[in-house]
Amino acid sequence: MGAFEFDAAMTLSGDGPAFGAVLDGRWDGHEGANGGFLLSLATRAAGEVLPFPDPLVVSGFYLRPGSPGPAEVRTEVIRSGRTTAFGQASVCRDGKEVLRATAAYTDLAAAAARGGPSFASIAPPDLPPPAQCQVLHRLANPPITFSERIEYRVTELPGWVTRTPPSGHPVYEGWMRFADGREPDLLSLPLFVDAVAPAALELGLRRMTTVELTVYLRARPAPGWLAYRMATRYLADGYFEEDAEIWDSAGRLVAQSRQLGLVLR
Amino acid sequence: MGAFEFDAAMTLSGDGPAFGAVLDGRWDGHEGANGGFLLSLATRAAGEVLPFPDPLVVSGFYLRPGSPGPAEVRTEVIRSGRTTAFGQASVCRDGKEVLRATAAYTDLAAAAARGGPSFASIAPPDLPPPAQCQVLHRLANPPITFSERIEYRVTELPGWVTRTPPSGHPVYEGWMRFADGREPDLLSLPLFVDAVAPAALELGLRRMTTVELTVYLRARPAPGWLAYRMATRYLADGYFEEDAEIWDSAGRLVAQSRQLGLVLR
Repeated sequence: MGAFEFDAAMTLSGDGPAFGAVLDGRWDGHEGANGGFLLSLATRAAGEVLPFPDPLVVSGFYLRPGSPGPAEVRTEVIRSGRTTAFGQASVCRDGKEVLRATAAYTDLAAAAARGGPSFASIAPPDLPPPAQCQVLHRLANPPITFSERIEYRVTELPGWVTRTPPSGHPVYEGWMRFADGREPDLLSLPLFVDAVAPAALELGLRRMTTVELTVYLRARPAPGWLAYRMATRYLADGYFEEDAEIWDSAGRLVAQSRQLGLVLR
Repeated sequence: MGAFEFDAAMTLSGDGPAFGAVLDGRWDGHEGANGGFLLSLATRAAGEVLPFPDPLVVSGFYLRPGSPGPAEVRTEVIRSGRTTAFGQASVCRDGKEVLRATAAYTDLAAAAARGGPSFASIAPPDLPPPAQCQVLHRLANPPITFSERIEYRVTELPGWVTRTPPSGHPVYEGWMRFADGREPDLLSLPLFVDAVAPAALELGLRRMTTVELTVYLRARPAPGWLAYRMATRYLADGYFEEDAEIWDSAGRLVAQSRQLGLVLR
């Protein structure tokens, strides 16, 4: 397991409540560490101090860009209840807080064993199998390092790859997985929800930053490819939301997320 | 202004960073204080210590039910940037934390003045004017106190009012406003996004609780009625999300929210 890049990047040192970590630059987006990657790291640290195995909800506020180098992740147990526990985790670089995250943890296997009614008015993206899709080779020029850690398959290359004008239709669908064969788990989902280029590129937007990202973890993902659907539905006064759905290879919704983005000038 | 009930309920005492407040039982849901009401209170307190006028995003984790009585709201300035400031606010009763909220504030009037491109693939609910709709008189039996503070207009009475079987279609649309004539503002939107009976009632669910609620404030609302659309799209293993959109009388999206609910047995 230690051979997988994501697990290496999630490694924490120390006994807590403050942990050491290293942001090694291999998970960077345009403006420092990828936001979803930082949120996975904060989620992992919160889990270290909480008595349940599975992240259920995590919300992160992005305070500063996260540059490569040694980091500290400060955690706090907010409350441990009977079925849910709540914690806080702050990712800091050079003593400055980069991300403030709050997380709820539970036992999703126990929740699945209890069962109950189910309902879905949404469905996985209607995609051909990954082998029949196109390979999306790189997420930008110059390349974004975290996109080298993840493989993508799409039915249509987006405008920023083919250098055609933006479509005006800010929805992206496709498949993704870790490039080194690591299977997805709950901890990796905050990364995956933020691992696709912003759908708002299809509106002609260029530079943007994330103010906040909330991820809802709905089920432990089955092994295999993850199907994603990312969409922006409303842009006004420089702010837009991006919603993500991640579906596992068994066709279950495993994560929903929403982030608020700000267009930079 | 002091005559309006919501403003009275949002009154904070003290100079901070800890403020006094009173949860007076007039904004209660089934299980203590309404979650959106508590989130408005936390948002208000965070705004007291941050240098910008407008809440932009607020995420709250529900740790315990909020019973009526004196409360303390503890705040922390996390970071003040050039255009965005971040704060934390905890609502406590009897020294126990009930709600942990994190908020980003900005100046939405300045954002609107800067302008930029706009896009919408969602639209306000297609409703007749409020005067042509039906009055929704009470939200439960026994009545939920906060529902007496808010007026509702709908095109169709929901199943839990008419005592007909649940429709299986968990979407609610309608109009709402403060019963005492107070106009909506940004601070009231965390309350309004949580002020409608859960759409999951249409799936036959009965008792449920909120784990987390994130609200995105998109524009200062115009005076008049607010149009709402609440929907649950996925329920599994006892967990469901509820998304809300709130549109103002000028047809602008003023709030989006998502909460994670847990079905109680």
